[in-house]
Amino acid sequence: MSDRFIVIYQLTPGAGEDVEAMCRGIALEQTVEMDADLIGSSQILDDIVGDIRAIDPLAEPGGSYRAEVAYHVSVTAFALPQLLNVLFGNISIKNNIRIVGLRLPETLLARWRGPSHGIAGIRRLVEVEHRPLAVTALKPMGSSPEALARMAEAFARGGGDIVKDDHGLADQSFCPFRERVARCQERVTRAAQATGHPTRYFPNISAPHEELEAQMEFAVEQGVQGVLVSPFLLGLDTVRYLSEKYPVAFMAHPALTGTHFHDRRHGMIPAVLLGTLFRLAGCDLSIYPNRGGRFSFTADECLAINDALREPLGQLAPAFPVPAGGMSLARIPEMTKEYGRDTAYLIGGGLLREDPDLGVATRRFVDAIEKSVTDQSAGRG
Amino acid sequence: MSDRFIVIYQLTPGAGEDVEAMCRGIALEQTVEMDADLIGSSQILDDIVGDIRAIDPLAEPGGSYRAEVAYHVSVTAFALPQLLNVLFGNISIKNNIRIVGLRLPETLLARWRGPSHGIAGIRRLVEVEHRPLAVTALKPMGSSPEALARMAEAFARGGGDIVKDDHGLADQSFCPFRERVARCQERVTRAAQATGHPTRYFPNISAPHEELEAQMEFAVEQGVQGVLVSPFLLGLDTVRYLSEKYPVAFMAHPALTGTHFHDRRHGMIPAVLLGTLFRLAGCDLSIYPNRGGRFSFTADECLAINDALREPLGQLAPAFPVPAGGMSLARIPEMTKEYGRDTAYLIGGGLLREDPDLGVATRRFVDAIEKSVTDQSAGRG
Repeated sequence: MSDRFIVIYQLTPGAGEDVEAMCRGIALEQTVEMDADLIGSSQILDDIVGDIRAIDPLAEPGGSYRAEVAYHVSVTAFALPQLLNVLFGNISIKNNIRIVGLRLPETLLARWRGPSHGIAGIRRLVEVEHRPLAVTALKPMGSSPEALARMAEAFARGGGDIVKDDHGLADQSFCPFRERVARCQERVTRAAQATGHPTRYFPNISAPHEELEAQMEFAVEQGVQGVLVSPFLLGLDTVRYLSEKYPVAFMAHPALTGTHFHDRRHGMIPAVLLGTLFRLAGCDLSIYPNRGGRFSFTADECLAINDALREPLGQLAPAFPVPAGGMSLARIPEMTKEYGRDTAYLIGGGLLREDPDLGVATRRFVDAIEKSVTDQSAGRG
Repeated sequence: MSDRFIVIYQLTPGAGEDVEAMCRGIALEQTVEMDADLIGSSQILDDIVGDIRAIDPLAEPGGSYRAEVAYHVSVTAFALPQLLNVLFGNISIKNNIRIVGLRLPETLLARWRGPSHGIAGIRRLVEVEHRPLAVTALKPMGSSPEALARMAEAFARGGGDIVKDDHGLADQSFCPFRERVARCQERVTRAAQATGHPTRYFPNISAPHEELEAQMEFAVEQGVQGVLVSPFLLGLDTVRYLSEKYPVAFMAHPALTGTHFHDRRHGMIPAVLLGTLFRLAGCDLSIYPNRGGRFSFTADECLAINDALREPLGQLAPAFPVPAGGMSLARIPEMTKEYGRDTAYLIGGGLLREDPDLGVATRRFVDAIEKSVTDQSAGRG
């Protein structure tokens, strides 16, 4: 057994705690869940327990170490629930352990199809070749299906690319899923025919387990080409299953993931969780809270997510980063410069603030994106 | 619309941050996801946005506040994924917000069946009326199905109550699920017939989405009466679905939940997450890291979990708390005194340390539990 994947940890030992013992504890905890001295089999110690490859002090943050542990691919059972478990199951309950990197060999990557559309497929879907995408969200919760459908139509008439449900829009009595999806899809399709630009509507799939596939099937029947999902609300492997079964695009929402990012000493970094893991689960686009918005990611964290979504990863197609949250049009030139063209900008509430007419606001949104690309090409970015 | 559930937060505003604005931000973020001034409908502001009922300074921890916000039950769509989302979806990515309590009205509770066995049903299953239960885990990962089955048999011969798979035992090539379950169940059943005590084997259900029900069905066919699940690895509502469909007992493992507990200013407290929410999902027993073990819960946190699992909650049956992790027999008297009889003690590795013969160690485990109850009744506890 020589085929291993590597987990890279940032470890911050407490007072009097030894980093080597801490790392050894992790390698045991995430596999055999017992002390090494109780294990009689040298084969288990050699092949199942994680193998510590390196432990080095870090300059930043002080008092922390970077450790690499190699786990045999077979401990994952080649399944996402158990991969998640080996990564951060029990140690989530410990302290000051942060997963900062992940290197997965082809043998493991081959198990997952990843994004079915990828960046190229999403670009074909919205017929946008050269620029970042313009995305918005239907809100607020409490609006009628008809009111949301009018918003979606205005966005499509303004030439936007993707309009998704807010991820809190479920199957509430005041806005039933089927009525919302049928109306929004109909209005967006009609507007897209008028403009000639194929704006797409992505409904939010958020149902009890036994109704998830009925929601997917209804959406597909209505002609929907993509959906929004929250992997931590539904289960990461449930999303993987849906994305393999249904030939539409999947956009991931980071709901409930944030406890991993709150304390930068403990959790999985956004690039691993919202980047690599969501991509493994088949997400073609992954939403994250942009720096400077109403959440608190740093510039480096945002760039690392972008890299994790786009970089080569076995046979898996690259996925679109979707920075979002409290953004305005004024930030687009800077974002295009920093993030590059293979990015989708999600502006929800900020777009409503741009102009009372959402069609006008959307036209301005798309124009700002196009200008940012032209300026950048001309060296004015 | 007057039917609401109450979320109780501990809020710790940053320097210069106003607690009322912070709380108002939460009530908006978890529902409409936009600023109030952009919402034209007073009905949405009144009925959909959370209603702040109280904000009071806390003596402990200093600089924090206790806030109560009431949300209309209909925003949950009466579904666990959306309930989780309203509770901690977007605000998971914010900072210094902790859910410390939850009050759910009957209208919402009526939606979920909860534990199918409950404490009374689990007691009937293992024919133990009066004392805490003796539970162990099959380990280490890497052992053959035959080796694990021998362990399970020894535990049953020693008179233990429940022997569960380690939650890292999935369907690995070196220990296939079906072979493990068939062998362990057969050996435990045989030993139970010999002792007259119905020791039960709970296999770990951890498969890709499309194989979960096949695993459940196989286990049930083998005569298994209970299973282990990790709600945060599989999806909380997936567990709810399985627990409603299959008439066996469900024991929950807290894998991947721990980022909620690391920083006591941000996340959901263990009592809400491992107590109330896991109980809503139908778990009859909920494992948590006991204080003083190799994890870091406090005595108060453990007692609060016990309360959340056992206290009246609509029509839902109470569930067994299962303190676990780095425990030894020496702690049993103290635990019985503090936690009471409706508790299940999970000792895994510690039991192997007790005696090389697991049957002998188990007998000692059960004896220690019985003695702790006798001593307590006699006022010697």
